[in-house]
Amino acid sequence: MAVNIPELEKPLAVPGFRIGTASCGVKSPALKGKRQDLALIVGDVACHAAGVFTRNRFRAACVRHGEATLAEHSDTIRAIIANAGNANAGLGEMESFWARQLIEAGAEAAAVAADVVLSASTGVIGTPFPIERIQEGVHEAAAALDADGWEAAANAIRTTDTFAKWSSAQVNIDGHSYTLTGIAKGSGMIHPNMATMLGFVATDAPIAASQLQVMLKRVADRSFNCISVDGDTSTNDTLYLLSSGIGLGHAPLADTELFEQALTGLCIELAQLIVRDGEGVSKFVTIEVTGAASEADARTVGRAVAVSPLVKTAFAGSDANWGRILSAVGNAGIAIDTNRITLLADDVLMFKDGNLHPDYRDEDGMGVFAQPEFTVTLDLGMGDATATVWTGDLTHEYITINAEYRT
Amino acid sequence: MAVNIPELEKPLAVPGFRIGTASCGVKSPALKGKRQDLALIVGDVACHAAGVFTRNRFRAACVRHGEATLAEHSDTIRAIIANAGNANAGLGEMESFWARQLIEAGAEAAAVAADVVLSASTGVIGTPFPIERIQEGVHEAAAALDADGWEAAANAIRTTDTFAKWSSAQVNIDGHSYTLTGIAKGSGMIHPNMATMLGFVATDAPIAASQLQVMLKRVADRSFNCISVDGDTSTNDTLYLLSSGIGLGHAPLADTELFEQALTGLCIELAQLIVRDGEGVSKFVTIEVTGAASEADARTVGRAVAVSPLVKTAFAGSDANWGRILSAVGNAGIAIDTNRITLLADDVLMFKDGNLHPDYRDEDGMGVFAQPEFTVTLDLGMGDATATVWTGDLTHEYITINAEYRT
Repeated sequence: MAVNIPELEKPLAVPGFRIGTASCGVKSPALKGKRQDLALIVGDVACHAAGVFTRNRFRAACVRHGEATLAEHSDTIRAIIANAGNANAGLGEMESFWARQLIEAGAEAAAVAADVVLSASTGVIGTPFPIERIQEGVHEAAAALDADGWEAAANAIRTTDTFAKWSSAQVNIDGHSYTLTGIAKGSGMIHPNMATMLGFVATDAPIAASQLQVMLKRVADRSFNCISVDGDTSTNDTLYLLSSGIGLGHAPLADTELFEQALTGLCIELAQLIVRDGEGVSKFVTIEVTGAASEADARTVGRAVAVSPLVKTAFAGSDANWGRILSAVGNAGIAIDTNRITLLADDVLMFKDGNLHPDYRDEDGMGVFAQPEFTVTLDLGMGDATATVWTGDLTHEYITINAEYRT
Repeated sequence: MAVNIPELEKPLAVPGFRIGTASCGVKSPALKGKRQDLALIVGDVACHAAGVFTRNRFRAACVRHGEATLAEHSDTIRAIIANAGNANAGLGEMESFWARQLIEAGAEAAAVAADVVLSASTGVIGTPFPIERIQEGVHEAAAALDADGWEAAANAIRTTDTFAKWSSAQVNIDGHSYTLTGIAKGSGMIHPNMATMLGFVATDAPIAASQLQVMLKRVADRSFNCISVDGDTSTNDTLYLLSSGIGLGHAPLADTELFEQALTGLCIELAQLIVRDGEGVSKFVTIEVTGAASEADARTVGRAVAVSPLVKTAFAGSDANWGRILSAVGNAGIAIDTNRITLLADDVLMFKDGNLHPDYRDEDGMGVFAQPEFTVTLDLGMGDATATVWTGDLTHEYITINAEYRT
């Protein structure tokens, strides 16, 4: 099940990057040659880099290594090596050893120093990491390096994702055109779960590493963290942004606002693709929160609604259950005045000033909720801040996937 | 579906209290005479009283009135009037008017002053409150007042509960025997939902109202709030404790510790009954958290595990998925050292010091998780504090109940 999957246009090559993939049989030797499960993203020059990681206290070795690497070398990163099929997590002291070997394999294949290589692993946890199969296969990825390798890489990092996810954008700043291309994988329903959320974005726009980091955190809060409702992230969740700055000769961007807008749009698109491909999801619902005292408040309310099992089952049942939505708002833990709240389903006004709207008819709300895609708008009447959160419904298929199969 | 419902012994009469019920047809006039839906609990003397209420920002009028009444009259409360079938919630300015009329109806029938009467309403929200039918029926409840009315009252406050819930205890303090009797209703699965959690406990032990309030808050945190995982409470949730102090002649209890132990045990029993009767619940799981730096930390970790959809579906699927449990711990938002965590399923040691235990065999864990009732123990290795949380699994039946029927 997946909701309104768009036809994706081919991803754009990004000056300064080449990408290769390989089939290593990471999950099982029987899969070797059958599906790609290793991606190598190589910068032709030293790249500026930023990363945003899981907030889970159990952090896999690739996350710990990546954070340490960025702390030292965020302006000279040369490659990312990523595998699907095994998360190299829940393995105690061996994790770090294997993560290091993965990085060294990527460095050797890309002919760069190991201390400027980032890594990411996704897949089963608690199973010994088959580093030998990756060491054998990585040269296939290096041999395949190509500026047009993004789509193959988006496929190689899939686990339970039913389709590959990517997005590209171009932005014109001061007469120069810059490219952004990102790939991502899901796929929990409620939030990126043990299956891990990964996202890698590359650009040729010249931006200082310190600026990139601040920007990426802000962008993640408005995109991937708006589907990662309730912060329930996995051990391996990672978002990397690399800038080759290769369109250069000219100076770093003085004004990065246009770039950030483009990056935000691209990350929102990737995040939405993850929701559309969420486990058991049959509806794609946008929660728009307006009139909040702060953006943080708005996001908190949006997430509280998006994560409520009672709200999500109401979505599944096409039940315009305004009571459950308001109760979720009341439980968000932020200051609200219940007499100022306005609630709409698409254009249908349901609740206003603490009362059901007199013109509201149940069948109008039901009509909206019966659609595969709709928007719930909540105005809190407390200020000017806004936030948008995207979520799916909670269905029998979700229970089947998560209760009847081991992930 | 309900898990291991115990045979409940008859509730004990509490000196100083009489209880009556009536059938008013609150939900629908067609139900009048068919099922009891109004309960009147009357103190023969002025009672000391305490209350704990929903933390939802949408609070029904009965909650707002009850809080105000306790602020003024916590040492002279004379009655509680409670109805099922209509929550008198989501109704704007009419709520307060109807709540007042409900209180006045109870006061008149019990022949006490309205300003010392508490009320509680549970049932559908957003439907006009049928105060006339209660005004007509309340005298039936007054005429039925009897010291042995607790079981009838436990039945009268039911909504979707599949069985009536009560518990009694006796405690001997300084040569005097005191009685406690409580009734409660559920019944969401994850947490008391819009269907409302209500609990009323009465005792003849003489305790100051100010002490009662502090004690009830602490007891609620260790009982009802340990099933109300994630604090996602409804608009009407209420727990009242009334003390008639009628066994008197002798002075207020100097040492209330034994009493608090008995009250805690009674409230835990009621809370567990609510979980066992939770929507779609097929398993009853106890989450024991030990070795925490503080009781608050322990409870936070227990709730994080208890509320995780991935953990709850693993319970449903009899999948001993330690990875999901540890991930939920990592997401609890408190300081932990992942290398110090120990995880057991009943007596089976699964995880220790950051690694799967070498002797752990998957089939042993699966054997535990296949039972209708088991305990997950998490030792955090950070201190001496503990907490226990009770939860159910997340099943297809829950989806069916909440997606296919409107509550």
